[in-house]
Amino acid sequence: MSQHNALYAQSGGVTSVINASACGLIQTARQHTDKIHKVFAARNGIIGALTEDLIDTSFESDSDIAALRYTPAGAFGSCRHKLGSFEKHRAQYERLIEVFAAHNIRYFFYNGGGDSQDTAYKVSQISQTLKYPITAIGIPKTIDNDLPFTDNSPGFGSVAKYVAVSIREAGLDVASMALTSTKIFVLEVMGRHTGWIAAASGLAHEKEGDAPHIILFPEIAFNAEKFLERVQQCVKKFGYCAIVASEGIHNADGSFISESGLVDAFGHKQLGGVAPVIANLIKEKLGYKYHWALADYLQRAARHIASKVDVEQSYALGKAAVELALAGKNAIMPIIVRDSNQPYRWSIGEAPLEKVANVEVKMPREYITEDGFGITPAGREYLLPLIQGEDYPPFHHGLPQYVQLKNKAVAKKLETSFQV
Amino acid sequence: MSQHNALYAQSGGVTSVINASACGLIQTARQHTDKIHKVFAARNGIIGALTEDLIDTSFESDSDIAALRYTPAGAFGSCRHKLGSFEKHRAQYERLIEVFAAHNIRYFFYNGGGDSQDTAYKVSQISQTLKYPITAIGIPKTIDNDLPFTDNSPGFGSVAKYVAVSIREAGLDVASMALTSTKIFVLEVMGRHTGWIAAASGLAHEKEGDAPHIILFPEIAFNAEKFLERVQQCVKKFGYCAIVASEGIHNADGSFISESGLVDAFGHKQLGGVAPVIANLIKEKLGYKYHWALADYLQRAARHIASKVDVEQSYALGKAAVELALAGKNAIMPIIVRDSNQPYRWSIGEAPLEKVANVEVKMPREYITEDGFGITPAGREYLLPLIQGEDYPPFHHGLPQYVQLKNKAVAKKLETSFQV
Repeated sequence: MSQHNALYAQSGGVTSVINASACGLIQTARQHTDKIHKVFAARNGIIGALTEDLIDTSFESDSDIAALRYTPAGAFGSCRHKLGSFEKHRAQYERLIEVFAAHNIRYFFYNGGGDSQDTAYKVSQISQTLKYPITAIGIPKTIDNDLPFTDNSPGFGSVAKYVAVSIREAGLDVASMALTSTKIFVLEVMGRHTGWIAAASGLAHEKEGDAPHIILFPEIAFNAEKFLERVQQCVKKFGYCAIVASEGIHNADGSFISESGLVDAFGHKQLGGVAPVIANLIKEKLGYKYHWALADYLQRAARHIASKVDVEQSYALGKAAVELALAGKNAIMPIIVRDSNQPYRWSIGEAPLEKVANVEVKMPREYITEDGFGITPAGREYLLPLIQGEDYPPFHHGLPQYVQLKNKAVAKKLETSFQV
Repeated sequence: MSQHNALYAQSGGVTSVINASACGLIQTARQHTDKIHKVFAARNGIIGALTEDLIDTSFESDSDIAALRYTPAGAFGSCRHKLGSFEKHRAQYERLIEVFAAHNIRYFFYNGGGDSQDTAYKVSQISQTLKYPITAIGIPKTIDNDLPFTDNSPGFGSVAKYVAVSIREAGLDVASMALTSTKIFVLEVMGRHTGWIAAASGLAHEKEGDAPHIILFPEIAFNAEKFLERVQQCVKKFGYCAIVASEGIHNADGSFISESGLVDAFGHKQLGGVAPVIANLIKEKLGYKYHWALADYLQRAARHIASKVDVEQSYALGKAAVELALAGKNAIMPIIVRDSNQPYRWSIGEAPLEKVANVEVKMPREYITEDGFGITPAGREYLLPLIQGEDYPPFHHGLPQYVQLKNKAVAKKLETSFQV
């Protein structure tokens, strides 16, 4: 079998473990140099592929590649760019082939969420439509946990752990201060369409009285009256109330809470988030002193508190992508299969990219308690395995030592440029 | 020497390591039962002392007391309540003596910041003014790092580590996304009056291009034009700009930035923080897509990423408090003395409570770069030792296992109640 090169790229919002997939992929490819000569990385996702902005990862040392396993964010840059349809944007696909051919690329690995798997699928089809022998494998990734087929999405488990740890810690803080000071704490977490991340915070609630006392899900229309009543009950019973609110919560009419309240001095909306609106509502109606936090990127970048399970799965998916490609598979995505809950066991399966792309999986209603403010035992059973284990990065001088790759460019071979 | 009881209380905003001081104090007292019969804890700081709401820590197992070392927040509850002057509020002091006498309390340990040391000092004076033999020792604590005499304040080092780790991680995230998405990230951190915490984020900036690119200090009047120019430079040079803003930053006229922008639907101000105002200013003037985070209590509760040096110092100060009291000292506060920077060595000293109370130490101007946007080598030299080492709490089922004490109440002996 002759040697060809592979192209790997990262796409969409990055996570604390997407580089672990890159690590698994590159380390595995390095064990198969008889088939994969070099792994190139596209700088900034598919954009780098289109603009022939490629990185030669063979210049990275084995130890630097190993360090990707514990380095958050996208080591090669990511992008939010979706390939248009083949019919309307044929030039993009022809350009990709031009780049692939110029650099002897026969394997394409695209690491991303639902939109990105659509791109991976479209590339996989080039082999037929444009008669270029490319093998395209998608590698799943998204903190939103909304990909189909896979039991869970790499990146989600670590965000889940971060929010559960954070609300536990902040809850203890508020409990200490509640008698004479802050009684309300609102933590806003990501999840515009689904409440997976908000739900994960519920793992910290192991017994009555534990934070979080209330979780606000995008799946449940916000009912201010019912919410305030519950807040009041919590403060009376526990002395304080710790709330986790998904950024995507909305009113019964569908309008986002985050858009309902804040305007800046110029009258512009959408400045703030959900947390200040919720906190202020409580202050207005119940008079309690509040604090609120908005974790934003901290939650998806927090490699220092990543879930070990998440890291291992991310790595395994990168590894599997290479193995599947070398086994002659095309247009598929390796996935996580849950083999058992107790003890938690998982394995790698595969799903057809055609059916993965653009499907958004919702959180089952039965994971949310009937009152809409917490998670059920079923939800806990699903979520708990995903935050298991710690996988601390190495620290030096008090700070995590994340790797910065050389990212040496591959010399361009094409004389044409391409406008994305 | 006859046996008496001790009273310990926590005061002011809690930290991720104040319980480590409680741990050091109680463990040390348990080694001197010939002198200290029991350690009582006042529930919710001085309020518990005034209302005879005491906790008998002797019901806590040795292992639960040991677990205080890695449990954030205030295990006995804290408060924001300052004792009035002896002249005007004599009844409060007489009440304290009544409670002390009823429970054979001869040692008083007050764990808090500047305001709290004022309380500790006032209690220490009872021995003279009201002829009750009480020994009062202050134990320092504040994330604000603004206590005099002590080289640094327990609690600060861990917040410092949290913000430096967080901006490093979020910075990598933004760097990955910057080409096609977010170019600006603003992390708001605590520090209403001093920029110690904001400054600590600068430790993550080890070489050119590292986040944070800009730090906004309360010590430096905010100059929008100069700031925007720097943001623009960063984006041009590095592709993105990661900013850490202290909540206390203000305009040249002294008005807080946090109050300058946001109003809610009812026209109320002070809803949001500094971060959204700064982020929106950049969007308005430079057009860049932004994200922002407000860590709030997460930063001071984040025991999972505490500084080992901070934990050890907090423990040592609690231990020293007992040793000083048993050595016959009164009206003092054990402090951290920096013996050398390289290698970092510290020891315990002492300072008179009379001079500690109500003094707020500012950050030296020479720790801030001349342009006002970063920290100098001198600042780094001071800050770096304080974030050294990790001291992870034990995890169980994926989450840190923090202890919740029994906090069994001491039976009341007084027939009178007291309104605080």
